[in-house]
Amino acid sequence: MDLDLALYLVLDPVQCGGHARALDVTRAALAGGVTIVQLRAPEWHKRAWLELALDLLPLTRRYGVPLIINDHLDVALAAGADGVHIGQNDLPPDVARKLLGAQALIGLSVSDALQVDHANTLGAMIDYVGVGPVFDTPTKPDASAACGIDGLGALCARSLHQTVAIGGIQLHNAAAVKRVGPGGIAVVSAICTAVDPQLAARQLHEAS
Amino acid sequence: MDLDLALYLVLDPVQCGGHARALDVTRAALAGGVTIVQLRAPEWHKRAWLELALDLLPLTRRYGVPLIINDHLDVALAAGADGVHIGQNDLPPDVARKLLGAQALIGLSVSDALQVDHANTLGAMIDYVGVGPVFDTPTKPDASAACGIDGLGALCARSLHQTVAIGGIQLHNAAAVKRVGPGGIAVVSAICTAVDPQLAARQLHEAS
Repeated sequence: MDLDLALYLVLDPVQCGGHARALDVTRAALAGGVTIVQLRAPEWHKRAWLELALDLLPLTRRYGVPLIINDHLDVALAAGADGVHIGQNDLPPDVARKLLGAQALIGLSVSDALQVDHANTLGAMIDYVGVGPVFDTPTKPDASAACGIDGLGALCARSLHQTVAIGGIQLHNAAAVKRVGPGGIAVVSAICTAVDPQLAARQLHEAS
Repeated sequence: MDLDLALYLVLDPVQCGGHARALDVTRAALAGGVTIVQLRAPEWHKRAWLELALDLLPLTRRYGVPLIINDHLDVALAAGADGVHIGQNDLPPDVARKLLGAQALIGLSVSDALQVDHANTLGAMIDYVGVGPVFDTPTKPDASAACGIDGLGALCARSLHQTVAIGGIQLHNAAAVKRVGPGGIAVVSAICTAVDPQLAARQLHEAS
């Protein structure tokens, strides 16, 4: 499936208000221009992840948009999702590629130059890197230190992979983030908790 | 690999004191008569699970003892472990069997008659059930209500699968638990925090 990182929704079903609301948010966000969706539900057991992923796939497929699973390769395999996004402490990229196969989309979180340099050695083992957090964010209390907008620009320029910026990105700072050159922006609460997720997606998409 | 549930070590590496100590505990516990080992590290990221599983396998293989991974099918696949143990909210048994194959050992937690009855319909999809918690335990704050020793006996009698009792089992109650007929007993802290894990395993094994 084609990879377009322009507007990357990290779907947190708890922030959305549960399974049914997460589907509503996704439907609206896809209509608003989201180009890739990642399911990330750290508080949930895997059976709930699987059930939501199976309900999300018909929606994302209708838009030709990939559905990525955070961390859990087994959920991705069970659901037949399009790929996974892994962090530095999750199962390593070579394991993900081996278990998911050549067609899967695999993203890796990087937060500093050392991690970008290592990611650069991975070649086609991964498809993109998530760079951040750009800003401090309450969503991931265990996240690395924020790199800021200038740091983001430097890390994206250093990367040989496609890049998506993540961490604290909202409508008011989206244009400034885009200006330093990431391949796209990833948002969580800016869409998941929006009163009108379709409008939020469209505004984030158009921000420049 | 043969399934002998007689003395089932649930290895919690945090209780043991980290990766290296977990290996020491396992080595001693195997020498003391443990017949099956499950890795369960809910506080750990998966890369740490994988690294420990890869170090555990040569030890368990030397004793012909299966290494089972709690919950994470992807860790089991990545490590080449012998099977998984899943709870009622984890990925379902049919998914585990499909992803892990016919040879894998698959255990399922059950805590009441309804769950035993459902497990009975699964046939060879699973290899055994873990029945409990027998007693209340601080190790799993989200666990179901304790079934007690009489409840354990009834649930084991009701099961068509091999059974292992779990939850709050220590040396002082091991004999009473064994008397009601489970296929074995599973312990966490009774071995992981023992001053002498080999002695603890031998005493648990011999308790009658």
